[in-house]
Amino acid sequence: MAAAAGLRALGAKGSGWLRRGPWAPLTTGFCSGGPAGIGRPEPGPRPTIARQRDGIRSIVLSDPKRRNALSLAMLKSLQSDILHEAESQDLKVMMLIQNHPVPIIAMVNGLATAAGCQLVASCDIAVASDKSSFAMPGVNIGVFCSTPAVALGRAVPRKVALEMLFTGEPISAQEALLHGLLSRVVPEERLEEETMRIARKVASLSRSVLSLGKAAFYRQLAQDLRTAYHLTSQTMVDNLGLPDGQEGVKAFLQKRKPVWSH
Amino acid sequence: MAAAAGLRALGAKGSGWLRRGPWAPLTTGFCSGGPAGIGRPEPGPRPTIARQRDGIRSIVLSDPKRRNALSLAMLKSLQSDILHEAESQDLKVMMLIQNHPVPIIAMVNGLATAAGCQLVASCDIAVASDKSSFAMPGVNIGVFCSTPAVALGRAVPRKVALEMLFTGEPISAQEALLHGLLSRVVPEERLEEETMRIARKVASLSRSVLSLGKAAFYRQLAQDLRTAYHLTSQTMVDNLGLPDGQEGVKAFLQKRKPVWSH
Amino acid sequence: MAAAAGLRALGAKGSGWLRRGPWAPLTTGFCSGGPAGIGRPEPGPRPTIARQRDGIRSIVLSDPKRRNALSLAMLKSLQSDILHEAESQDLKVMMLIQNHPVPIIAMVNGLATAAGCQLVASCDIAVASDKSSFAMPGVNIGVFCSTPAVALGRAVPRKVALEMLFTGEPISAQEALLHGLLSRVVPEERLEEETMRIARKVASLSRSVLSLGKAAFYRQLAQDLRTAYHLTSQTMVDNLGLPDGQEGVKAFLQKRKPVWSH
Repeated sequence: MAAAAGLRALGAKGSGWLRRGPWAPLTTGFCSGGPAGIGRPEPGPRPTIARQRDGIRSIVLSDPKRRNALSLAMLKSLQSDILHEAESQDLKVMMLIQNHPVPIIAMVNGLATAAGCQLVASCDIAVASDKSSFAMPGVNIGVFCSTPAVALGRAVPRKVALEMLFTGEPISAQEALLHGLLSRVVPEERLEEETMRIARKVASLSRSVLSLGKAAFYRQLAQDLRTAYHLTSQTMVDNLGLPDGQEGVKAFLQKRKPVWSH
Repeated sequence: MAAAAGLRALGAKGSGWLRRGPWAPLTTGFCSGGPAGIGRPEPGPRPTIARQRDGIRSIVLSDPKRRNALSLAMLKSLQSDILHEAESQDLKVMMLIQNHPVPIIAMVNGLATAAGCQLVASCDIAVASDKSSFAMPGVNIGVFCSTPAVALGRAVPRKVALEMLFTGEPISAQEALLHGLLSRVVPEERLEEETMRIARKVASLSRSVLSLGKAAFYRQLAQDLRTAYHLTSQTMVDNLGLPDGQEGVKAFLQKRKPVWSH
Repeated sequence: MAAAAGLRALGAKGSGWLRRGPWAPLTTGFCSGGPAGIGRPEPGPRPTIARQRDGIRSIVLSDPKRRNALSLAMLKSLQSDILHEAESQDLKVMMLIQNHPVPIIAMVNGLATAAGCQLVASCDIAVASDKSSFAMPGVNIGVFCSTPAVALGRAVPRKVALEMLFTGEPISAQEALLHGLLSRVVPEERLEEETMRIARKVASLSRSVLSLGKAAFYRQLAQDLRTAYHLTSQTMVDNLGLPDGQEGVKAFLQKRKPVWSH
């Protein structure tokens, strides 16, 4: 199976992938997120494929006929696969990623546009092959990518976001890395290996600790410095009170590998 | 006319340029923006030259004797050329760029300092030749570039901004690109061609859609994630209600080029 | 004396360094900042060494046995050396750096982890050797680096911060530079020379002007654009009212070197 992909979620209880063949862009040139989203749900097989293994859930975007457009059907399928057995009050996929208790990694091999690019920008970590590219092409059909711009504008410098949004032209994986949209770029043949290496490392750590830390990270980021330190000082206390926080420190002092209860 | 330049504004009805010869820095080492700005208006020819063509207004900074210092006379001339027939309540040039309904592109060929560097940082898109450089030299004459730092601090990482502000020393075009102050860097001989390529692409799109999108982009950027998505979801609805939003989608479905009413 | 270091503070009246030998990481893999910080004060010699010369205070982290862990004893010693004769209400070292009236430069030669990496992220300017690296390894022992993440999340793009926090793996000096954690990277043999070059340039400028500018920079950064310009316009007025502001402009017009009263 040639690596391709889009998104990978470490599930609370399992694993799964969102990936796609290299023959098609991650999504077509429409923007999603508004109540008047262009995509329509349609009957048929689920457009995502999920599987679980070793604490890693892989979710693969798999709707080649529609070039993996983030239609309503795709978004619902994606949402269901990401949530799995986790609970969430949030029904918007993009917000859901940030609010999800586990780290979510995007793996990209191809062209990611509009909501597809937004999905990459919204993930916690993103790995892409060097042949990937990213675009916000809505202006070409008279629809400014306003909702994707929310995620893009928080991932890359303003001038980079605006050139993408105002011209609709793609940037390369290297440019995306340079400007913070990606965590790392690798040759296509090493894409799955590198993404899985990161995923396995994350999956080897305490889920309760990662969950606490992820929530605290996003919460403090929106605050002024003093409030941010106040919040996270409390998080440190909470962390040390967790069974895995105590096990980790104990194992370190005893020079042995920690055994997480998650 | 050898390309050089500083700022390019897509006018609502015309075009114009702000450019300058390669023999002089974009502006001298003073900082502007405060009520006690050092520049003084003086009688004489207008220090900017504006022309319009194909929906692109070019405004050229042209005061070589004063090395294109952003004096009061220069700022007033610049403001008048940028506003042209657009309406604005805002009388500060730097705020005006962000609030202006059309994308504004800076084209730089040389040294841009203090308020000149602030001008580049304030534009939506910025293209520079590889021989350009950027500095905040106010500390050398005992005047910290506090107002330019507002724009600079929102364009580049904090450590880059502070080294420029604390030492007064220039960074290269490549460093400026690396850190988000520029959208792209090209060899001097390709500067005008590349800038015009971007300008023509932007000018080929719907002005009403770009205007809606630009305003939404800056508005959402200052909000928390939830509010940002709420605002831009409404923007998507408004966008699809625009004549050009409907024409764009229709043209896409009919596989023809859209005809914008702007 | 082989250069190594960690932090350099321009003192109000003197100089001093925080540096360390290249044989040990800047700090060990614990996170500090919470009221339940792991480090404990212990009797013994001071873990930092401070010296002053030519308006530059150098403070060297010097606790090789404990691999320069930011223990309570280290933090207290550091705080005392940074404050010296400056006054501060703030007793947290990390906040203290931002609120301190003089520019603070970090010099790094080795591995900076957790609170050590936070210290680098918190400084105004940071120079590192190309063999340096940076990590947030707390997750390995079940303690998410939540307080260090406050500084890291404000220095680098979100995806870079999260990969470091979620995997605990180090990034190289070049990656740190690319993403805004460092101001510049040089070969090890040029580290002290380059850092001192920047320090000497900063020390040659007016301390009162730098102090005013530093405070204004951080204050405006947290505000919306309009408020930021309002604040800094007032700063420009205050700056021109300073003796060194007037001396600087006068000296410029008289084409002579300014003589600062600081």
